[in-house]
Amino acid sequence: MIEALEVSLGERSYPIYIGSGLLLRSELFVERMRGRDVLVVTDETVAPLYLARLRDSLSDFHVAELILPAGEGSKTLATATRVIDALVAHRCQRDATIVALGGGVVGDIAGFAAACYQRGIAWLQVPTSLLAQVDSSVGGKTGVNHAAGKNLIGAFHQPVAVVADFDTLATLEERELRAGLAEVVKYGVISDADFFAWLENHLTQLLSGESQALMHAIRRSCEIKADIVGGDERERGRRALLNFGHSFAHAIEKVAGYGNWRHGEAVSAGMCMAAELSRRMGLLDAAGGERIAALLQAAGLPIAASGLDPAQLKAAMGLDKKQLGGRLRLVLIEALGAARVTSDFPEPLLDEVLEDATAVRPGARSAGG
Amino acid sequence: MIEALEVSLGERSYPIYIGSGLLLRSELFVERMRGRDVLVVTDETVAPLYLARLRDSLSDFHVAELILPAGEGSKTLATATRVIDALVAHRCQRDATIVALGGGVVGDIAGFAAACYQRGIAWLQVPTSLLAQVDSSVGGKTGVNHAAGKNLIGAFHQPVAVVADFDTLATLEERELRAGLAEVVKYGVISDADFFAWLENHLTQLLSGESQALMHAIRRSCEIKADIVGGDERERGRRALLNFGHSFAHAIEKVAGYGNWRHGEAVSAGMCMAAELSRRMGLLDAAGGERIAALLQAAGLPIAASGLDPAQLKAAMGLDKKQLGGRLRLVLIEALGAARVTSDFPEPLLDEVLEDATAVRPGARSAGG
Repeated sequence: MIEALEVSLGERSYPIYIGSGLLLRSELFVERMRGRDVLVVTDETVAPLYLARLRDSLSDFHVAELILPAGEGSKTLATATRVIDALVAHRCQRDATIVALGGGVVGDIAGFAAACYQRGIAWLQVPTSLLAQVDSSVGGKTGVNHAAGKNLIGAFHQPVAVVADFDTLATLEERELRAGLAEVVKYGVISDADFFAWLENHLTQLLSGESQALMHAIRRSCEIKADIVGGDERERGRRALLNFGHSFAHAIEKVAGYGNWRHGEAVSAGMCMAAELSRRMGLLDAAGGERIAALLQAAGLPIAASGLDPAQLKAAMGLDKKQLGGRLRLVLIEALGAARVTSDFPEPLLDEVLEDATAVRPGARSAGG
Repeated sequence: MIEALEVSLGERSYPIYIGSGLLLRSELFVERMRGRDVLVVTDETVAPLYLARLRDSLSDFHVAELILPAGEGSKTLATATRVIDALVAHRCQRDATIVALGGGVVGDIAGFAAACYQRGIAWLQVPTSLLAQVDSSVGGKTGVNHAAGKNLIGAFHQPVAVVADFDTLATLEERELRAGLAEVVKYGVISDADFFAWLENHLTQLLSGESQALMHAIRRSCEIKADIVGGDERERGRRALLNFGHSFAHAIEKVAGYGNWRHGEAVSAGMCMAAELSRRMGLLDAAGGERIAALLQAAGLPIAASGLDPAQLKAAMGLDKKQLGGRLRLVLIEALGAARVTSDFPEPLLDEVLEDATAVRPGARSAGG
């Protein structure tokens, strides 16, 4: 079971393979390698589960392995330097390839090291989380965190291929699977109302890991992201739509303390806040906002940020790197499937949304709590 | 006195302004800035000489300054991180601009920080050494050193403009001016026999800092490099010609101990070695080789690496990052103005060239000695 789609970026175009049993299909890896030297970068969670399979598929290559501590805490310049040191120790030249086996964190670090080593070597992404399969594997954003903010140090560096084997989702914690679904829902909201409706109708199958449903959800998510990225690789325009919910989300993650909320959980709450702001501005009808919140809630995701301090959230949004020239830009929606980027919103309405979303309500689920 | 030329790289095209009094012409800086935030990166040698002039030209902007220790020793990931920290402290957003005021080292560090900060912000290069004006200012190579080798960590990141004010050469040490001339000579050798002949006839004017001669030498060097880079931004083919002499040069710098030879001095000796290999292979006639050596010697540059160990040099060349798939590639010349990249050369001839070039001869000048 395999499907392929292409991310069209001229000479940087690359294929995404989606399916079952892909880790064992060495031809998917071999066809994109230029030289014989390969460094596999993975983490302590993923290595015992999937490294052996990948090793078998790479048996014709000269392979070194680097296993990083799992978690966002690894996403530092120091860790990226460890990857570079491993490339040096393995005597990798410009034709070497990094294979990133893991979730978004592993991909971000390994991709950034690939971007910097000898001014850019090839990397191949093997995303093992739903979030990485539908989000970080498309578009070439790589990077590490700085004490002052997430992803402040990074590069655009497209992989040579993505091999998304959804068998790896079987070992994913349920909380991680749900968090990944937040980004899947996002694609429906910002650009495809039919896909959103399909998600409403297939949530049960997705949560139980049914193959056909996963295949469709991952493929459609990658298609939508690939389409947007293909027209705006460097995020000068339309690509910013992919940040729907993210200005709120980054603030939530920061104020709650990094690691307390999963990124996808914060995106879920953030999307509800952005939708609510859109509704209060008269852009989105009430029914649309309700469907978004209902789907996310049914997926077991938070739809508010109960208990966080609204003033702190607002301050954290002010430092968000998606600002342009000092003015906060937000993605708002006009209807399911139609979004736009704007810095034209009434600040008092934003304040109201932040107040309401952080109010402590009996029974309200908070991701961090 | 000003001339402009364009480096043609599609949407990454940028102008190079060459002339006198340019540091004071604020319009050259203003036209390329997107936002108001500017970080000037310079070093302890250049700051007291030229920072005040630049500051005047940037008076309409919100400017922070970072002064690094001078010298190749600064070219580390730690220093690049200091630049990023300064951007954070200055609350720079994606529309900020780094202005790199200094020689190649400052440009390499500042350009790399610009490449990585928020996945790439604008940078404007103000090269103050001849080497930086004719070489590092064209082509977007940025980077820092790793303990295992020079420029192992880096990025291709084109500046938004280059302002090459040759007034700054007046305060350049004579040794640095001569070292810069090595790269100027290189352009003649690899691609323009007429320019080479012009250099033979105008060496005295160049060494005495005569404006018209400097203007022509810098402009023609930038033109040649821009032409080559424009056709091969990522060094997949013809751009490798610019490495003429450099495989030898990097080995000389490494074996002699970094800092003992100026880069341009090592390039001078390296070009003579590459020319001699070309001659022994029957590609280049003896007269061509003699003219190259004579011009470099007249410029006060070393034409051999007397006293270094040939076996060490050879080993150091084997680790050169310009290898592809483990096979050393060299730039050889067929005539003045005509070069080619090849891995097809007899190793015994290379050994002979290394032996001869390192022999200690009475009266031979060695840069390091």
